[in-house]
Formats: sequence, C-alpha cells, structure tokens
Amino acid sequence: MYRSHTCGELRASHIDSEVTLCGWVQKVRDKGFVVWIDLRDRYGLTQLVFDEERSAAELLEKARSLGRETVIQAKGKVIERASKHPNLPTGDIELLVAELTLLNKALLPPFTIEDDTDGGEDIRMKYRYLDIRRNPIKNNLIFRHQVTMEVRKYLSDHGFIEVETPYLIKSTPEGARDFVVPSRMNEGQFYALPQSPQTFKQLLMVGGMDKYFQIVKCFRDEDLRADRQPEFTQIDCEMAFVEQEDVLNAFEGLTKHLLKEIKGVTIDRFPRMTYDEAMKRFGNDKPDIRFGMEFAELNEVAQHKDFNVFNSAELVVGIAVPGAASYSRKELDALIDWVRRPQIGAKGMVYVKCNDDGTFKSSVDKFYDQQDLAAWAKLTGASQGDLILVLSGNTKETRAQLSALRMEMAERLGLRKADEFAPLWVIDFPLLELDEETGRYHAMHHPFTSPKPGQLELLESDPGAVRANAYDLVLNGNEIGGGSIRIHDKETQQIMFRHLGFTPEEAKAQFGFLMEAFQYGAPPHGGIAFGLDRLVAILGGQETIRDFIAFPKNNSGRDVMIDAPAPIDEEQLKELHLKLDN
Amino acid sequence: MYRSHTCGELRASHIDSEVTLCGWVQKVRDKGFVVWIDLRDRYGLTQLVFDEERSAAELLEKARSLGRETVIQAKGKVIERASKHPNLPTGDIELLVAELTLLNKALLPPFTIEDDTDGGEDIRMKYRYLDIRRNPIKNNLIFRHQVTMEVRKYLSDHGFIEVETPYLIKSTPEGARDFVVPSRMNEGQFYALPQSPQTFKQLLMVGGMDKYFQIVKCFRDEDLRADRQPEFTQIDCEMAFVEQEDVLNAFEGLTKHLLKEIKGVTIDRFPRMTYDEAMKRFGNDKPDIRFGMEFAELNEVAQHKDFNVFNSAELVVGIAVPGAASYSRKELDALIDWVRRPQIGAKGMVYVKCNDDGTFKSSVDKFYDQQDLAAWAKLTGASQGDLILVLSGNTKETRAQLSALRMEMAERLGLRKADEFAPLWVIDFPLLELDEETGRYHAMHHPFTSPKPGQLELLESDPGAVRANAYDLVLNGNEIGGGSIRIHDKETQQIMFRHLGFTPEEAKAQFGFLMEAFQYGAPPHGGIAFGLDRLVAILGGQETIRDFIAFPKNNSGRDVMIDAPAPIDEEQLKELHLKLDN
Repeated sequence: MYRSHTCGELRASHIDSEVTLCGWVQKVRDKGFVVWIDLRDRYGLTQLVFDEERSAAELLEKARSLGRETVIQAKGKVIERASKHPNLPTGDIELLVAELTLLNKALLPPFTIEDDTDGGEDIRMKYRYLDIRRNPIKNNLIFRHQVTMEVRKYLSDHGFIEVETPYLIKSTPEGARDFVVPSRMNEGQFYALPQSPQTFKQLLMVGGMDKYFQIVKCFRDEDLRADRQPEFTQIDCEMAFVEQEDVLNAFEGLTKHLLKEIKGVTIDRFPRMTYDEAMKRFGNDKPDIRFGMEFAELNEVAQHKDFNVFNSAELVVGIAVPGAASYSRKELDALIDWVRRPQIGAKGMVYVKCNDDGTFKSSVDKFYDQQDLAAWAKLTGASQGDLILVLSGNTKETRAQLSALRMEMAERLGLRKADEFAPLWVIDFPLLELDEETGRYHAMHHPFTSPKPGQLELLESDPGAVRANAYDLVLNGNEIGGGSIRIHDKETQQIMFRHLGFTPEEAKAQFGFLMEAFQYGAPPHGGIAFGLDRLVAILGGQETIRDFIAFPKNNSGRDVMIDAPAPIDEEQLKELHLKLDN
Repeated sequence: MYRSHTCGELRASHIDSEVTLCGWVQKVRDKGFVVWIDLRDRYGLTQLVFDEERSAAELLEKARSLGRETVIQAKGKVIERASKHPNLPTGDIELLVAELTLLNKALLPPFTIEDDTDGGEDIRMKYRYLDIRRNPIKNNLIFRHQVTMEVRKYLSDHGFIEVETPYLIKSTPEGARDFVVPSRMNEGQFYALPQSPQTFKQLLMVGGMDKYFQIVKCFRDEDLRADRQPEFTQIDCEMAFVEQEDVLNAFEGLTKHLLKEIKGVTIDRFPRMTYDEAMKRFGNDKPDIRFGMEFAELNEVAQHKDFNVFNSAELVVGIAVPGAASYSRKELDALIDWVRRPQIGAKGMVYVKCNDDGTFKSSVDKFYDQQDLAAWAKLTGASQGDLILVLSGNTKETRAQLSALRMEMAERLGLRKADEFAPLWVIDFPLLELDEETGRYHAMHHPFTSPKPGQLELLESDPGAVRANAYDLVLNGNEIGGGSIRIHDKETQQIMFRHLGFTPEEAKAQFGFLMEAFQYGAPPHGGIAFGLDRLVAILGGQETIRDFIAFPKNNSGRDVMIDAPAPIDEEQLKELHLKLDN
C-alpha cells in the first residue's frame, strides 16, 4: 500500500493519526527553519511540514531540495495547523513528516501546473498529460464522467438498452466524408468508420430492440473549423412504436434529469417552436432564448418612405437592445464596422436611440419622423433607454446577420449567463435543403427522415416546402441534439433516395440492406442523437469542447502529443494492397 | 401514442381495461370460429383473440390473413383467458381485439423466429436484424447491457473515472497488426485504430487521473481464428500509487460484485497460483479449476523400466479421470486417435484402468507390474473405477497436449458446468517469451510491464527467467482479464525496449512521448483489461462470443449483412493520396 489516505481526505478528526500520503509537489515554501510543501493529487492538496525542531536535519534538507511536480510519498503524523486555511478542505491540519520517499523525479514542467497556467494552447496540447493535472481540465473530465453516468442511469432506468454497434462499417457517399480503413484480408476493399450508427440503430428497431441507446464515438473527415473534432462522441438513441411527441417527451425527460442532477436547475416544460417561427423570431434555427431582443419585421412601417435601401429590400428587420441608447457615436460606428465584417456581411446598419425623454434619434432622421420611429419602437418592443438596430436585404442573409448581431449584443451586455439554462425544441424542419451552388436538394437531417404525413406528394411539386418529423433540442443557442421520425417502409425510402439524386442501383448498393430489412416487418420508429462533447461543455458553463476531451486533436486533425498521423512502413502498405499516390 | 402497454405487461389485474398493444405476429392459430394471435415484442407475448360471437366478420377475416412477423397494432379489452398458460407471464389474460391496424407488412422470414431456429449461422448473420428478434440473441444483448451497467456502477462508486481516449492514434510495430486510417489532410500519413488504450491510460496516470476506466472498442487486424473478432470490447482500467496486491484486490472486488449481482454467486476469495504452478498442475496458464484431474508428474516412477517411450521423454505426466475405468477398448482406441489428431499432436497415450477389485489393467502391462501402477495411481490420486491417462515427450508440448485432453475428458464427463464459476488469479508471469522461430524475445504481456523488483539485472544473463508483476484473471478456463504493474521510469523503459530489439531511434519514434512523459513526474501505476465479449459470454454460461455481439463479423472479417468491406470510389482514393497496388 503506497498510501493510507488521499491528499483531499484529512480533517481535524484525523489529528494524531499516523498516515501515508502520495502525490506531486505543488509548491515548496522554505522559511529556513521550517519548510512547507503543498502535496497534490486528484483529490486535493495537503500541507506537509518539516521544521528544525521536530524533523531530522537531513529530512529537512531533502524536503527543501524537492522540485515542483516531483512524485513523493510522505509518512508522518497529522497535526493541527497553526494558521488554518478556511478555503481548503484539508485546511485544518498539516502532516508532520517523519519519512519522505522520492517515488519519481520530475523535470521542470514546460508550463505551470496552476489553475491559471502560463502555457499557451500549443504547448498544453503537446504535454496534455501535464495539462490534465491542472484543476480546470481535470475537473472537466470528471464532470464529463458524471454526466455520462447520469445519462446511462436515466436511460437504463427508462428501459433503454445500450447496444454496441460496429466501428468497421461501409463507406457511403451521402453526408460528410468518411474515414476509411483498408482491408488486408479483402484486397482492394475498405471499411469506413461510422459518421453515426444511424442505419444500425434502425436495424435494431427492425430487430425488436424497442429502445436503444449508445454513447459512441463517431468520425467525420471534414475540414476542421474551430472547435470541431474529427472524432466526437454522440449519445445515440432510438425508439420503436413512437410518434414525434413520444420522442420529445422521452428526451425532454433526460435533459431535465441532467439539468436537475448535474446543475440543480428545475425546468418545468421546454418551449417548442417551429423552424419557421425560430427563423422569423430569431433568424436562427438554434436561438438562444436566455434573453429577448426578438426580431421585429419592419417592412410595413419602414418601406415606402423615400429610404431606398429599405424600399428595395426583401426584409427590413430590427431588434431592441436594452439600455444601449447610451452608445456613443464612436461606439455605433464601430458596431456598423462590426456588421460589415466579411464574416457577418451586412452592407450597413440603421440605429434608433430611444431617448429617456421619449424622443428618438436615428441615423435615418432624414427619412423618418418621430411618429415613424415610434412605430418601430412599438414593433421591436423598445423602451426609453434602448437602442434599436435595423438591418435589411434578402431574407435569408439579413436574418443570419441580425442573428449574429443579436448574439454579439447579448454577449456585450452579459446576457449569455453560463449558469442559466434555456432549452427549447425546434420542430417541423424542412425535409430538404437546396444547395444553391449545385441546384440539388439535400436531406436537411438525413435521408432516413420521414416527411410529415400527407406531404409525400409535395416532393414533386414543391420539394422545399415539405416539412419533416424532425426536431432539434437547443440549449443556450447551441444545438445539443437532433433527430427525427424515420421512414420505415421500402417504398417511401426509395422515393426519398430518388429525390436525393440516387439511381436505383446506387441506392441498392449503399442501403440495400436497410430497404431489405424494411420488408421483413419494420416498426414505426424514431430517435435522436446528442453531441456529448458540446452538451458537457454547455452544462459545464463553458464554450470550448476541447477542454472537455482528454486527448483532442488540433485543427489539422493532428494529435501533437503522440505525433499522429504518421507515415507507415512500406511493408504495411504492401500488405494492405496500397501504394502512395504522390 | 402507438400503445398503452407492452406485450409483456398485462396481468389479471388489467382485466376489463381497454388497452392498445403493438408488436409482431408470432403465430396465428385459426380454429375457424375463433382465431388466436400471439403478439410479440421485446417484453413478451400476449394472446389476442377474435371469435365469431364477439368480433366483426371482417375483423376475424383480417386476423386470419396475417402472416408471421407482420407488424400490427391491436386495441381492445383485456379479458380472462379460458385456459390459462402458467409459464407465460401474461398467461392469465388475453386481448379481445376490437380494432386491428396493420403497421407494416412482412415477407416470410428466411428462418423461423423461434428460440430453436431452423436458420444456419450464415443466413442468421445476413439477416442479423431478424436473428436479434429471437429470444436467445435478444436476451444476450440485454444481459450484456446489464453487465456493463454493473461494471460502470461498481467502478464509478469506487472512485474510477471513465475517460474516453482517442480512436485515431499512431501505428506501432509492436504486437498484432494495426488497422490503419489514411489521412486526407496529412498526405502520406496514417492514423491507426487502437489495439488497446494502453499508452493513453498510462498518460492519464502521469496526468494524475489516479483511477481510470473505460469500456472501449479495440481493433486487431489478425487472421481470425474461430470466435475472434477484428473489433472487440475491453473494460480497460488503470490505477496510480498501487502495487500488484492493490490491483488484484480492486478487480477481485469488481468480479465478485458481478458474480453476485448478475449470477447470485458468492465467492469469498479468489485462489492465486503462480504461472509456474499453473503450468505444472494444469499444463495451462488459464486452468479450469471447476474440476480436478490435476497433473501428476510420473518421471520418477515411470522411467528406467525398459519402456523406451517414457525413458527418452523429458516429461511423463498423467491425470486420473474419475469413473472412466469402464471405457471399452474401442473407446480407448478412439481416445488415442483423438490425442493424435494434428490439433493435439501427441504421439501416443498410455492408459491404466483402476479396476473395482483394486487391480490395474494398463496398455503397458508388459513394462509395469501392479506395484508400479499402484504408484502411478497414488501420484495421480486415482481411486478404484478411475482411468489414468499418461502422455510423454518434451515438457512444453506434453503439458499442452495433456491440458487439452483434460478439458476434453471434463467436457465428456459434464464437469464444465455453465452455472458454476471458479475464478482464480494466475500471477508471476514470465516477462519475456522466446519466439522459437526467430530466436527473439517478445514481451509476454506488453513492453510496458515491469519486471519483479531486483530482476532487472537478470535480463542480460537469463531473460527467460525474469518474472513480471503481471497477472491474469481466469474464469472457468478462460482468461477474462490480464494486466500488470507498469514501468514508470524512462531508464527502465529504455532497457526494456532495447531487450525487445528496438533501436533507440525506433523506441523514440514510436514511444518517445511516453518516455518523455515519464520524466515529468510519473507515479507508480498498474492496471488490468478485461475482454468484455468473453466475460459476458462466460457469465451468460455460453461459449460463443458472437452471440453476445449485436453485429459480429465473420471469419474473413466481413459484415455479411451490410456487405463490408467494399470498394471505394477512385475519387475517394485520390483524395487520400492512395492508389491500389494490384
């Protein structure tokens, strides 16, 4: 036994006990006649003490010589601490060390192992094992474990069975790019790593598993945007004999359970909003509803008044920013520059200050009188002291721009509170999405999503108008889960594949097994998948999913710690029947 | 809501309730004036009833026409069943159907969906989703879920944190062949899929995670023997600041918990046996100790008696098979043929019948008198009525042959009872194993296993004699877990790599990150990994791991249901900077 207790365990009740601790040297404070060491492990910090009066001279000398992060074992007696440390759980005691054993030496770490480290992102990733010693990262990983334990407990208690689906599957051209795995035993053939276990969970429903879940790694070979990972974790779920309402209720239950158990937050009922409504009210299909600033469409009151920018626009839309009428001219100019940045792409912005005396001051006073502006204030819900911001242009882009501006203003005003949780369901998503470049329709969710009852015929005449039994769970402006009721008959699935541009041969080659399965008695079914990495980050009140992943990859998909990917042997390539194409 | 209850739920207390059920038609029994349907879902079977008196004529007609595996919804009233079915949980009631809805039609399944199916292995694998509908497979998957829930609960309650380690890592030449994943973004470079998260869990220990576990998929591109899978699941565990004793206690605790919770079996303390002892007493490092038939070495009593076969042998070793003295001459000849099969490889076998009258009758009566044979009986522990079987030859091969024979005899005698559980620890494994073909030493466990204290020097003089802090957990003749105390300092790790034939450059290229990590304060640590697929099969009292995997692959590594692996597009290959080498 290396230790009798952990470094987070000892209390006043242990005084006079003989104990053994192990851990890392966090800090050595050498006052000459006395040396204190903060000893750290996963569980906490305990102060070790050595002094001239009570410790052997060589022991004191040894203590003094220890560098940061050295691994030691300390035996001794727990004594009362002279100056108690009220914020430290072990702050009532210290360990008077009688025996000190060096378990492993340590080079000076390349960054400080402190909550606020001096290490930049790159060096922390290279020495991730040192980064994990820091409380913020360590606590995130423990938090993630707690969340997954609660998820499993809740789902299992509600009759869901966790079933492992295979990782070595078949490549499909639909969706994002697959990672592939060459087969040695089947020359010229490849497995693919799953982008999700979608077809397998549907086959489990055909197989009568009834309620399935799995916390599972998924893989997408995409060009990585900030905070995306080539491998990520999903909470993947599916239920048989359900309608949309059943699925929403089941997973609202799970999410409520997590909010309650993990965050102590009770939410009665999650609001629901159609996709169309979300786009109209927030310009976004994953609105952050922790705060207001809802969109007000101003076409009726702002057009036909000689202001050509508005008159020629498809949409004139504004928000009332609470308490921002005090923005200076300079600040407003900076805001206009902000919306004009290429990432946002607005051509300009109109503002109206709602003065404390009830008057209005706008950037378009030339075109609009006080009565006009009062109408804008009424529609946006602006009160005295608020600032109305208005954008215009084509509907799709203008909404996206104003949505970005709304989030920016909320951020500046401190309205995106990490400890506040505002979930909502966005429902009735379009079945298909037009790719404007290719003119082709894509499945907005995936090709297995079922259209709303009775809308199948619309697929021919007005594909963009077809709504699906598809839904997203949104939390604080992030999509944390998404799913749908699936197609469960071969004929409808064939129609869908045809509309997505598959030839019958392609559909059969890729998904023949699924359509065949549908012929042997497939129950109605539907499900959802949550992005665990993001869910955990949001529940943890943070933004960066990387800080909740033990060994993340960088934006080029590299693991800089182990230096992967890497070249492989000529021999290995040969066995796989491959050559490099360079 | 498709249903108000499941097909396993209704009891006498529900009589007179109006309910809705959904499920698959298991069987239609048509007696003309009355039709019964067994309706099946995951939860059970419920009998539906239609008759001329109480059901509309067209409803009766519709019921009569339903084929097996059709998916239906049935609404009606729960009534008392005339002839109760005592073995069926719902056997007190039946559902008098008022409304019947066809949810999906079904083709005739290619094999019967019954506990004893008429489907062979191949067809069951191709239509695995239908196979999963069968109780034996469905119950195995549910059982697997229950085991993993218990594992997670126990480990989490004991302070272990589940941490996900990456799947896209780096290929290493050590051990089995890796599956590799070409990188699109890093031309000419490859990830590898992990054979185990070994180095990552060690880095988590360096990172202070203290107690880690993960239920995780692992991958090995091996030529598949029967009942091996290219992807398999491990319960992977690691602890810091531990000695072997701590690890054994921790995971004996887990295993006891599983035996108790899952099987209702209480085992006080697991026996321990050194590798050397296991080889001597059972000829095997994973002995099945549910029964005796221990090895008795007979060299002293059987050699120097003119029987040249024994005289020239390195080892003469026998077992006493209880109650088998009644074997006929024909049966004994067949047994000799059995040990001579190439899979076993013995040259011959000597037998001694211990007659009921206290005399002996052997196949070597020419060389040995009754007193000689009595000595054999004494050493093997044979009593009257037993059969002594003796093999001879070089130690290693003879032990393996007699071990196979011992298992065969136990099987024939019904001593390998599925509901009896006999775990044991095998400890003190050799550190290295000589590959007789190459003359090179390999790590018996893996290159991170630490030699016993003080034995490092032996590595030079007598590498085969070095024992490791390595241990296996054996259950009913199967290795269900294995692990070791690891090396945790750079110097020892370098020595190990050198002895395994790595140049310093190779060691650095492959494991430089681990050795570097060891320099920054690595704690002493060790762990274990359990093979979940096998563990679950053994706990389930079965042999075939495939029956506990939802979607297994065949012996060529193919998923015959989805038909993977498969060729990929030329375009896809190009993006990966690869060409086929054919």
